[in-house]
Amino acid sequence: MTLPTLVSFVAGRTGSWRIERIHAVAGESLPAADSLEVVDRRDHSATPQGVWTLSGTTSNARYTTQVEAAALAGKQEGLGRAGSTCAALIPMRKSPKWWALAQDQRREIIEAKSRHIEIGMHYLPAVARRLHHCRDMGEPFDFLTWFEYSASDAPAFEELLARLRATEEWQYVDREVDIRLQRV
Amino acid sequence: MTLPTLVSFVAGRTGSWRIERIHAVAGESLPAADSLEVVDRRDHSATPQGVWTLSGTTSNARYTTQVEAAALAGKQEGLGRAGSTCAALIPMRKSPKWWALAQDQRREIIEAKSRHIEIGMHYLPAVARRLHHCRDMGEPFDFLTWFEYSASDAPAFEELLARLRATEEWQYVDREVDIRLQRV
Repeated sequence: MTLPTLVSFVAGRTGSWRIERIHAVAGESLPAADSLEVVDRRDHSATPQGVWTLSGTTSNARYTTQVEAAALAGKQEGLGRAGSTCAALIPMRKSPKWWALAQDQRREIIEAKSRHIEIGMHYLPAVARRLHHCRDMGEPFDFLTWFEYSASDAPAFEELLARLRATEEWQYVDREVDIRLQRV
Repeated sequence: MTLPTLVSFVAGRTGSWRIERIHAVAGESLPAADSLEVVDRRDHSATPQGVWTLSGTTSNARYTTQVEAAALAGKQEGLGRAGSTCAALIPMRKSPKWWALAQDQRREIIEAKSRHIEIGMHYLPAVARRLHHCRDMGEPFDFLTWFEYSASDAPAFEELLARLRATEEWQYVDREVDIRLQRV
């Protein structure tokens, strides 16, 4: 259990990750840029400027049960693995209809109907993942998810995305940008 | 359903509310000040300076079920009622042990064991209430709750607080400051 960490994804001319492509899955895209830097701002320093900067904070899990959390913890690996030369940043916004739902309704759609946690678990430890929340920060997206995986696991990552995007939960996604990166 | 609103509580020499007392219930207190202003910062303008400033954001409810949300909506009244000359601001922080719990464990403690939502409901519409989240913002507290009530409902408000503070949920509160105010 760690404190929430504020993280900024700064697109610009330099950075540890080279942006391969930016693709709008739903709604408006983001401007083109060459590179991306992931900046840990747990000191709440000033927001770094870039071609664009998206910020979010890691937080407590909002839906995961104790049983699921234990299963995830037993299977997942962290970010920064030597073999993880591929990354994806997927900023996402959900509709007002989603946010008007109560906790039990959101949980039912996420897991009972969409198997979001179960699907993600299937691709562990290959696809490492960190979720950042930003709806409460006045940001243009609600969530920023950062994924890291090896080149050989790239097909598995595509399958994971395809399965999630086919769920009932994704009917509530009204903006989604898919950004792919290679470690420099 | 409205967008999250960033709100700052600014203590200083002027403000719409006169601070009557500041009392530390658990952990460190806050510095004395004469007055308090409640500043709507949904435009994400710069943080107002004061003797102290606490900021948080309204957000989606994290535990309330659809049935509970409907019951609350049918009974509660908004802030700013003419008769609500009394207010309380209660900044609160929960322990690392709390935040290490999964969603189902936190929900079980909040409602199945502590009846937090049911207790709050009992004092509606007398005690109007707005919850602001701030754990993810690098603030010193996790929540800021703002209450408004009439002078004649002040005893009911004391009873509400006493009942909540006696719950199992409150065993996870490691800092709580109770600030009472009168409308100027």
